[in-house]
Amino acid sequence: MSEPVIPRGFRDFPPEVMILRKKILSKIERIFQRYGFDPFDTPAIEYLETLSGKYGEEAENKLMWRFKDPWSERWYALRYDLTVPMARYVAMNRHIPMPFKRYHIAPVWRHEEPQKGRYREFYQCDVDIVGSPYPEADAEILEVMWKVFREFGFESVKILVNDRRILRGVFEKELSISDPMPVYRAIDKLDKIGVEGVENELKKTGLNEDLVRKIMKTIDLRGDPSEILGRLEEMYRDNKDVVEGTKFLYEMISYLPSGINIVFDLSLVRGLDYYTGPIFEAVVEKPRIGSLAGGGRYDDLIALFAGEKIPSTGGSIGVERLIDAGVELGIFKFDKKTVTHVFIVVLDRSREIMSYAYDVARMLRENDINVSIDLMRRSVSKQREYARKLMIPLIIFIGRREYETSKVTIYYTETQERNEIDKQDLVDMIRKILGGRG
Amino acid sequence: MSEPVIPRGFRDFPPEVMILRKKILSKIERIFQRYGFDPFDTPAIEYLETLSGKYGEEAENKLMWRFKDPWSERWYALRYDLTVPMARYVAMNRHIPMPFKRYHIAPVWRHEEPQKGRYREFYQCDVDIVGSPYPEADAEILEVMWKVFREFGFESVKILVNDRRILRGVFEKELSISDPMPVYRAIDKLDKIGVEGVENELKKTGLNEDLVRKIMKTIDLRGDPSEILGRLEEMYRDNKDVVEGTKFLYEMISYLPSGINIVFDLSLVRGLDYYTGPIFEAVVEKPRIGSLAGGGRYDDLIALFAGEKIPSTGGSIGVERLIDAGVELGIFKFDKKTVTHVFIVVLDRSREIMSYAYDVARMLRENDINVSIDLMRRSVSKQREYARKLMIPLIIFIGRREYETSKVTIYYTETQERNEIDKQDLVDMIRKILGGRG
Repeated sequence: MSEPVIPRGFRDFPPEVMILRKKILSKIERIFQRYGFDPFDTPAIEYLETLSGKYGEEAENKLMWRFKDPWSERWYALRYDLTVPMARYVAMNRHIPMPFKRYHIAPVWRHEEPQKGRYREFYQCDVDIVGSPYPEADAEILEVMWKVFREFGFESVKILVNDRRILRGVFEKELSISDPMPVYRAIDKLDKIGVEGVENELKKTGLNEDLVRKIMKTIDLRGDPSEILGRLEEMYRDNKDVVEGTKFLYEMISYLPSGINIVFDLSLVRGLDYYTGPIFEAVVEKPRIGSLAGGGRYDDLIALFAGEKIPSTGGSIGVERLIDAGVELGIFKFDKKTVTHVFIVVLDRSREIMSYAYDVARMLRENDINVSIDLMRRSVSKQREYARKLMIPLIIFIGRREYETSKVTIYYTETQERNEIDKQDLVDMIRKILGGRG
Repeated sequence: MSEPVIPRGFRDFPPEVMILRKKILSKIERIFQRYGFDPFDTPAIEYLETLSGKYGEEAENKLMWRFKDPWSERWYALRYDLTVPMARYVAMNRHIPMPFKRYHIAPVWRHEEPQKGRYREFYQCDVDIVGSPYPEADAEILEVMWKVFREFGFESVKILVNDRRILRGVFEKELSISDPMPVYRAIDKLDKIGVEGVENELKKTGLNEDLVRKIMKTIDLRGDPSEILGRLEEMYRDNKDVVEGTKFLYEMISYLPSGINIVFDLSLVRGLDYYTGPIFEAVVEKPRIGSLAGGGRYDDLIALFAGEKIPSTGGSIGVERLIDAGVELGIFKFDKKTVTHVFIVVLDRSREIMSYAYDVARMLRENDINVSIDLMRRSVSKQREYARKLMIPLIIFIGRREYETSKVTIYYTETQERNEIDKQDLVDMIRKILGGRG
């Protein structure tokens, strides 16, 4: 006998969790499809070298699930995100029509220290537009992300934007930091570790106190994009990168629908290496849970595989965070333990009555109604108890009387109504009851 | 630059493949739900010791993806099937109401030598009933499996059944083979390697020629269950195991709907260690592709974790085989390259016309129509070419005339009809056209 243990940092998804997750994922999927994105998938496993050199030092040396196959002695890795495997696919399939607009809803694996709300396996919902260098592509990513949060009822969602070119202009040229990626990764933790924490991390990268103070002051710039972008343009009018970034963001914003809440935030940096243009994160004011989605433009990523540059942009929703936030706001509830609509309680196990009960079950199933029937040969009260525990909305009782009159007794738990009705009227009646519950 | 390479034995799922797969999986899922099964998931990764000692020697020493985590030095494995992780879950969660009826549609990983139609990552669709020792549970598994194949239109599907108790009675008692599992694993390859192949495998397990000949003759027994089970009862009337198995199968079959094509086959053994009662495989006559589904009762598996015995039964559909068979029979077609319904071609990129085009796109998306709009600033002919390559059924043209009259020009590629219609009538018209396409 072995102890039943789930690996640390992982979890199971019992029905009451899966039912809500599936509902949420299928709504996200429908929104992605409405914007013209198509489904796509890649294997969970990649060769380690496929993922190496794409994300940055911390991701690759601390967080990636890497392993040596004991048979082939080859190094593999579990996918760390959905973007790099897709880039590998595009590089291998150069004939696909551009733009390649795909969505990808799947788990990724990260070797994080387990903590509340953070797991080593979690789902991402990605949309990407491969092939377009234009700001309308970035705008479409922002719009579809925003749409997801609004349709779920996250009233307070806002989208923070910045641009890696603006950051490069400011950090490399104005602040003379030749390798800004470690700086970005420190700043990226602002939410988690606070101002002092970031200052300490920055000092650890070897920067002096004066420069750290300057950085912290510089990135403390956020607000309405039209105002802030104007200020940036004025402050850094001779800085080619800053000017290019601000112009692109202006144009991107012009393609967005009215009502979308965009905030420019110079402290938004994103931790991954591969971004090259606009970057964004979706946040809600309450609960304070970090970003629910993020993404940006990564014009040089596919070139790492393909040689040729294929401009691309995309975004990713973290399903776990979205669910946690929604549950906290009362938007989502784990209130269904089963998708079963009807439980059939058999009052008499004689052959002809069992056979009648199965006829009823099969008739309902043929009519798209989800039915369970006792499989435990339990007493009537135990059968009812089971249906009650699972909160199955309808119970059908079948005994000798029902069998002899071609009827069934149906009990609707919500109203506690009980009716004896003809078998032939059952489907319509159940549809009416279930339809009424939404 | 790194070469873009997918790991050997793995593959990507581009949209034209995913669209069909998703359609098939969601149909399977609906059938599972109709029979009262609920969604469930577990992590892709388990501790190696969780999976060890459950499947048998070959599975565990040759086919399981196992790896040592370089950080923790702990051994992990990618899940080899969906049954053992579920058993681990049940053992950890002893409070769940029984029967626990769950379905699980997810990838599993096996370190097989790659060959046509066989991959190292593939999807299983499992249904299991945990907690019931009764043959009506096994019958329900068979019925739901059969339903899947029939609803997809596999007319020739038949379900081969046997029982591990019958096999035990015959092999251990009648043929005096003390450890029959290696014999089962050899016989399990009958489909793949033929009679001579199995004979050679059996000899390799150390059996003498005489016994091998006896085995081959014994297992050559198949046909209508009522006839064959009767014969078995007669032949082995003093064999407790055979009698128990035949009685159970008789009873199981009595719960099945009429019309289901069941064949008893004594050469059906299943390769995995954990089966204890009825076992089955679903096969089609054409194409000759091996079994499309399989499963059986495994009353002792959960006890390996929980101590206490929790009788269980289940089945698993191999999606890849199902799709391959369906494509070969013409039941399934990879005929959709996109789920996008409408492509909007912009004839004039001036600000007000672009803005009008986006209004139209957003109106359609709000009405659940899937819309793409040019993101490449391409010529009109290039835009049309793109829509044609993806086989998008409807093209909407928007230029100055359309903008000024609040109209759009809509082109239906199938009939080559072109109409200019009011923007406000567009949703209804598109719904009518798309509805007509099924």
